[in-house]
Amino acid sequence: MLGRFQIRTDLALEARESFEEDVKIRGVRVEEEENEELEIRTTTVVIETENGAKTMGKPVGTYITMEAPNMSMSDEDYHREISKELAGHLKKLMGEEEKSVLIVGLGNREVTPDALGPNVVNNIRITRHVIQEYGAAYPGGEKMNAISGIVPGVMAQTGMETLEIVKGVVKETQPDLVIAIDALAARSTRRLNRTIQITDTGINPGSGVGNHRNGLNEQVLGIPVIAIGVPTVVDAATIVNDAMENLVSVLETENCVENYQLIREMIPSHLNTMYVTPKDIDETVKRLSYTISEGLNIALQLTAGKGEHTQG
Amino acid sequence: MLGRFQIRTDLALEARESFEEDVKIRGVRVEEEENEELEIRTTTVVIETENGAKTMGKPVGTYITMEAPNMSMSDEDYHREISKELAGHLKKLMGEEEKSVLIVGLGNREVTPDALGPNVVNNIRITRHVIQEYGAAYPGGEKMNAISGIVPGVMAQTGMETLEIVKGVVKETQPDLVIAIDALAARSTRRLNRTIQITDTGINPGSGVGNHRNGLNEQVLGIPVIAIGVPTVVDAATIVNDAMENLVSVLETENCVENYQLIREMIPSHLNTMYVTPKDIDETVKRLSYTISEGLNIALQLTAGKGEHTQG
Amino acid sequence: MLGRFQIRTDLALEARESFEEDVKIRGVRVEEEENEELEIRTTTVVIETENGAKTMGKPVGTYITMEAPNMSMSDEDYHREISKELAGHLKKLMGEEEKSVLIVGLGNREVTPDALGPNVVNNIRITRHVIQEYGAAYPGGEKMNAISGIVPGVMAQTGMETLEIVKGVVKETQPDLVIAIDALAARSTRRLNRTIQITDTGINPGSGVGNHRNGLNEQVLGIPVIAIGVPTVVDAATIVNDAMENLVSVLETENCVENYQLIREMIPSHLNTMYVTPKDIDETVKRLSYTISEGLNIALQLTAGKGEHTQG
Amino acid sequence: MLGRFQIRTDLALEARESFEEDVKIRGVRVEEEENEELEIRTTTVVIETENGAKTMGKPVGTYITMEAPNMSMSDEDYHREISKELAGHLKKLMGEEEKSVLIVGLGNREVTPDALGPNVVNNIRITRHVIQEYGAAYPGGEKMNAISGIVPGVMAQTGMETLEIVKGVVKETQPDLVIAIDALAARSTRRLNRTIQITDTGINPGSGVGNHRNGLNEQVLGIPVIAIGVPTVVDAATIVNDAMENLVSVLETENCVENYQLIREMIPSHLNTMYVTPKDIDETVKRLSYTISEGLNIALQLTAGKGEHTQG
Repeated sequence: MLGRFQIRTDLALEARESFEEDVKIRGVRVEEEENEELEIRTTTVVIETENGAKTMGKPVGTYITMEAPNMSMSDEDYHREISKELAGHLKKLMGEEEKSVLIVGLGNREVTPDALGPNVVNNIRITRHVIQEYGAAYPGGEKMNAISGIVPGVMAQTGMETLEIVKGVVKETQPDLVIAIDALAARSTRRLNRTIQITDTGINPGSGVGNHRNGLNEQVLGIPVIAIGVPTVVDAATIVNDAMENLVSVLETENCVENYQLIREMIPSHLNTMYVTPKDIDETVKRLSYTISEGLNIALQLTAGKGEHTQG
Repeated sequence: MLGRFQIRTDLALEARESFEEDVKIRGVRVEEEENEELEIRTTTVVIETENGAKTMGKPVGTYITMEAPNMSMSDEDYHREISKELAGHLKKLMGEEEKSVLIVGLGNREVTPDALGPNVVNNIRITRHVIQEYGAAYPGGEKMNAISGIVPGVMAQTGMETLEIVKGVVKETQPDLVIAIDALAARSTRRLNRTIQITDTGINPGSGVGNHRNGLNEQVLGIPVIAIGVPTVVDAATIVNDAMENLVSVLETENCVENYQLIREMIPSHLNTMYVTPKDIDETVKRLSYTISEGLNIALQLTAGKGEHTQG
Repeated sequence: MLGRFQIRTDLALEARESFEEDVKIRGVRVEEEENEELEIRTTTVVIETENGAKTMGKPVGTYITMEAPNMSMSDEDYHREISKELAGHLKKLMGEEEKSVLIVGLGNREVTPDALGPNVVNNIRITRHVIQEYGAAYPGGEKMNAISGIVPGVMAQTGMETLEIVKGVVKETQPDLVIAIDALAARSTRRLNRTIQITDTGINPGSGVGNHRNGLNEQVLGIPVIAIGVPTVVDAATIVNDAMENLVSVLETENCVENYQLIREMIPSHLNTMYVTPKDIDETVKRLSYTISEGLNIALQLTAGKGEHTQG
Repeated sequence: MLGRFQIRTDLALEARESFEEDVKIRGVRVEEEENEELEIRTTTVVIETENGAKTMGKPVGTYITMEAPNMSMSDEDYHREISKELAGHLKKLMGEEEKSVLIVGLGNREVTPDALGPNVVNNIRITRHVIQEYGAAYPGGEKMNAISGIVPGVMAQTGMETLEIVKGVVKETQPDLVIAIDALAARSTRRLNRTIQITDTGINPGSGVGNHRNGLNEQVLGIPVIAIGVPTVVDAATIVNDAMENLVSVLETENCVENYQLIREMIPSHLNTMYVTPKDIDETVKRLSYTISEGLNIALQLTAGKGEHTQG
């Protein structure tokens, strides 16, 4: 209830869920797929019209969400099976032809739940400089796209908008595609660290810890932007709001309904400057960044070379 | 109300506050002092008897709490004035005679709000090895205590209790005193990053992120243990509980009182594995660790040497 | 001797020294100044003509070198006196009027002696974003220039030339001035970590560890570039070459002169991919970066505000 | 020649090489094995008698050296084949029965070529705390030895001997075996980052950067100590010495032999406080630490469980 008016989520999936299951939303198509063996549930939300975009509060485009409860668990293989699934979705959105790709690791490497993007870039096979020197099939390596990577940092560290930095680098180095990785804020703690959203609509830098910036997307950069996001935090205000909602739903059955307004006012405003995250977030983010970087490394090869078997 | 039964705080000050202002607690003495110029409010809680300890849920001993709203603000001087106040309190608890001191930086350097202890140790002037080679008045340096430092890490990284590591190192290196620095969990977000607690009772490693361990104290180590703590997180369950409390206090005026029990059950249990912290925690912890390490560097000099003017 | 033909140094001072003291070089002016109290020796080499530039192997411009043997020693004040001297030289090269400045921390934060630049940027007071929001005299702060900062990383990490990144960021954010900080390669181990070179000619990214890149200078960026460099490494080939030179100078007195050629060939080529650095480089670089960042923080204030006394 | 008198190497293999190939050393047995497919050359030096120990300048014991030129090259699999070979050698030295093992990551995590040990511990599957709670066959995991890990740091950071820390921790936690990982100093740049030495004699902490400490071995700790070392640096004095040696061998053919003494004096003494290392040491050490930690993870499983296929 309250949620509908003040929902705060980076996941299209959750935006959709804020409406009753059975309600059909104009201009929004939803497909679900269950892989029982791998325990991965994939939901594709396609926002097809501006009207659908308005209702959902998200731009027109495709949002693929992989939910895998085990993702945040330890695994010697860093969940190779999820990396491969991710690679498949990326290839669909990227297309097959050769491309030069700039990987942007958004977020603050000094804040554990926000370090996902920077960590992923650390594990990407960077090839652009090698290819510029030796050509696409460089010594020993399978044929690769030209991959570059950057960790722009956050405004408090640079004094610049992330967008200003990425824009400048894109103009100078002329990649064909940007893939941005970011930590997201989820609506529900249930989703933390077990959900990957892949979208062709780009994202808002720093949205992982909630401060709004200019969009990182095709309109702004002039080239396609694929965004990979994992929710690692929930806004502190949200978890209080949730508890309140439950309470209200109970109180409705009684005669305390006039408390709605009161309740909303009761959420301390300073909670908007705070986030909630699990205590073992350091290990989780470390593992997730391997899973995602491997997905990228596989997707970015031109030929199904040795990489297909990378670490697997 | 609810709080009294499920209070979760590492601050003696907050434990005291969970009782009505005017209630006199047997065996607990409280002194307050206000330094208007420096905007530092110092509260000393002395738990004098086992009875007082039981009521407070904290061991017998002295708990000095410095509250300085500006502490978490940026300052070119890293709040030199607070470092000096801190040094004063430490000297009182340490005594004046020469001592060999082991500084223990508790917490997880990989989790931003828990990295306070490790960061402090990084900035301590380590002298034990130099003194063992050249004697107390070593080349160029003012007369120093023999200072050693260790960052034991957390159990998930070492497989060992912090206490096992510290115990072993203490037995082997025979310091006269342990000073442990730790990030704490506060009861209220109001106190985050603006409060320093200094106590002669030791602390529980990792309490900063809430998982309970064996005590790090004189009974266990056989030498005095001074603990310096700064609250950098609040348990996620706590902020929900607080909102609930407010709500209840309102509902009491109406006829919904039977909801108490219900409300308590409404706090999702998994919130106990999560913490709340400000979004700019990286800068704050970086600054706080300078303030505290400087306080230690000043307090640990034997002679009022150059250090008195260090960075100030 | 050999040196003259294969000299490898980033210091104009050393380039000058490779010629006999008394030789007057056309188009090159040298001034020396000794501050006995602070034990700082300042040499200003001004290359005035293209002819001088050719002889010196360095572009036309001003090269100020501060030599302070104590610089690499521990100091509670992080050598505040050197920071102030540095600030003075910077102000001369910058001019007095208000400016927006982009600080570029060159080098590889993962390689200890090359992490100087990145560390300095970590300690700079970044203000551009605040000023854009609140104006030059923002809450509490003294009047500041608009300062932004970036750590572009090295090509192996990004796949891009440092220059491409800086160029793009400069075009996008339009600063008036770039100040680049870099670790340099010295000719002689004698100079390591005790020399600061300030020049208005810019520098070569990564030159700190010897791999050549495109220049970072006014011709390329279209705005003035001040470079601050500290030699933290010597090329491995250089120290072998030096030993050889000494030997030769001895052999000359005998009849083994025909060994010159032989000797030069004896320097293993793979040494060019290696560097020499002191074992305590981690502590030294940590300290140097404070000294330099404080020099910048002082120089970049518009009014002699509190900063003048920062940490001093 | 000169080398024989001032040799400085942590590799038994190099100690052996400092003698003529064909000379038979009493009490020293050498076996070689070539795996052409994997391009790994394994040399086992067994020092059997005190006499052999004296000649070699190394304690009695087994020294297994794996040389793999590709080891320092990039590989998507982090050289899984080498990890498995390493695991095999470790199992031979460890014995088959269940053991509790303390992994000690020696060296300075702040100095790139010395960070090998700390990095390895970061990637070890730590299980002791889990096993103490759930028993050897814990949820989901294959049967594991009880593994703990520590990064003691270096004396400049702790003020304590590494040995004091490890000794204390061993006494307190009572492991059956210590495995210590350290960066070594090689005699020749040829061997850097492509050689792994495994020995049952322990090692000297910090020897990777040359400063001598007390031994970390069975006599001192009372339990077996297996040491894994990789040469990542060469002492700066060594490479000068080598160049000199070559020169001398040439000069011998002429009449300049009286220069020996002169030459030895020509090596600047301060070079002993410096080391030589490749410019890309950051990437190399990052990769090597994966290769070694995987070798340990495989060797430390009790049953050939999933781990055998870890990342492979």
